[in-house]
Amino acid sequence: MQKLETFIRNVPDFPKKGIGFKDITTLLKNPEAFRASLDAMQKALQGEVDVIVGIESRGFIFGAALADRLGVAFVPARKPGKLPAESLRAEYELEYGTDALEIHRDAITKGLSVAIVDDLLATGGTAAATCRLVEELGGVLHCYLFLIELSFLNGREKLKGHRVESLIQYAGE
Amino acid sequence: MQKLETFIRNVPDFPKKGIGFKDITTLLKNPEAFRASLDAMQKALQGEVDVIVGIESRGFIFGAALADRLGVAFVPARKPGKLPAESLRAEYELEYGTDALEIHRDAITKGLSVAIVDDLLATGGTAAATCRLVEELGGVLHCYLFLIELSFLNGREKLKGHRVESLIQYAGE
Repeated sequence: MQKLETFIRNVPDFPKKGIGFKDITTLLKNPEAFRASLDAMQKALQGEVDVIVGIESRGFIFGAALADRLGVAFVPARKPGKLPAESLRAEYELEYGTDALEIHRDAITKGLSVAIVDDLLATGGTAAATCRLVEELGGVLHCYLFLIELSFLNGREKLKGHRVESLIQYAGE
Repeated sequence: MQKLETFIRNVPDFPKKGIGFKDITTLLKNPEAFRASLDAMQKALQGEVDVIVGIESRGFIFGAALADRLGVAFVPARKPGKLPAESLRAEYELEYGTDALEIHRDAITKGLSVAIVDDLLATGGTAAATCRLVEELGGVLHCYLFLIELSFLNGREKLKGHRVESLIQYAGE
């Protein structure tokens, strides 16, 4: 099996000039690579969790498959206006302006151990916002888990105080 | 195990007055119910597929877990502007105006057998658009597979000529 990073496609100048986009669709369409990444994520979790929170949308791909493998709850953290029942909201900063994520109030009960899963750790804003939602509901963050980490953006700094696991790290663009 | 439909929450007047929204988050957070729905979807596939296409966003949840279980490729059909590499686009009608879905040109190669997975079949517009994308790439549609079907909206009519499987049917609002 080749290294996982060989299945990630770098797409230059997306979504805008100067950004090298890490395209995971080339990994997802290779069953061995997709399963190997899930194997490694499962291993990186180290210990028991009760809930996997997946961040919309690509976090759903890894989060849901992990929840199925582990036999634990899957909870989506969604973009504003998507969740139908009573929800909590957390804002986070973008380059220009802010965006937000929401979670159902009844998604997590107090004391449950939670892993937050996404495909990519960039600046850490969405993951940190998701953690605030989890903790506001009384959940205990077990770890953050990412397929890819753009280390040069220092997202870990924003997630400090919690364990952060990633399978593939990029030290520069 | 209770029937799967007992895990679906009906949220009245969402996203607008008069609509009863079928909330799947109550199923997803129950590991037995989530796994039972995946077991049933896996069984409903009947036969071999090479690719699972999941429709953004909730189709990613079921589609990715099924692709992992079956050891086949996972391909996301995404909202416009999300996919970084060369893509095809198919438009579909909304109540007011149109929307579109996209798929990478290199996502599916000619002759591959494809299942299109989503959480909900309503009017069938997004699923039919996804099928056009799959067929334009030379894929062969094995079946459509949904957790929930709102039978009273006659979505099957728009999908005719292909097998349509759903686990839970609602005959009225």
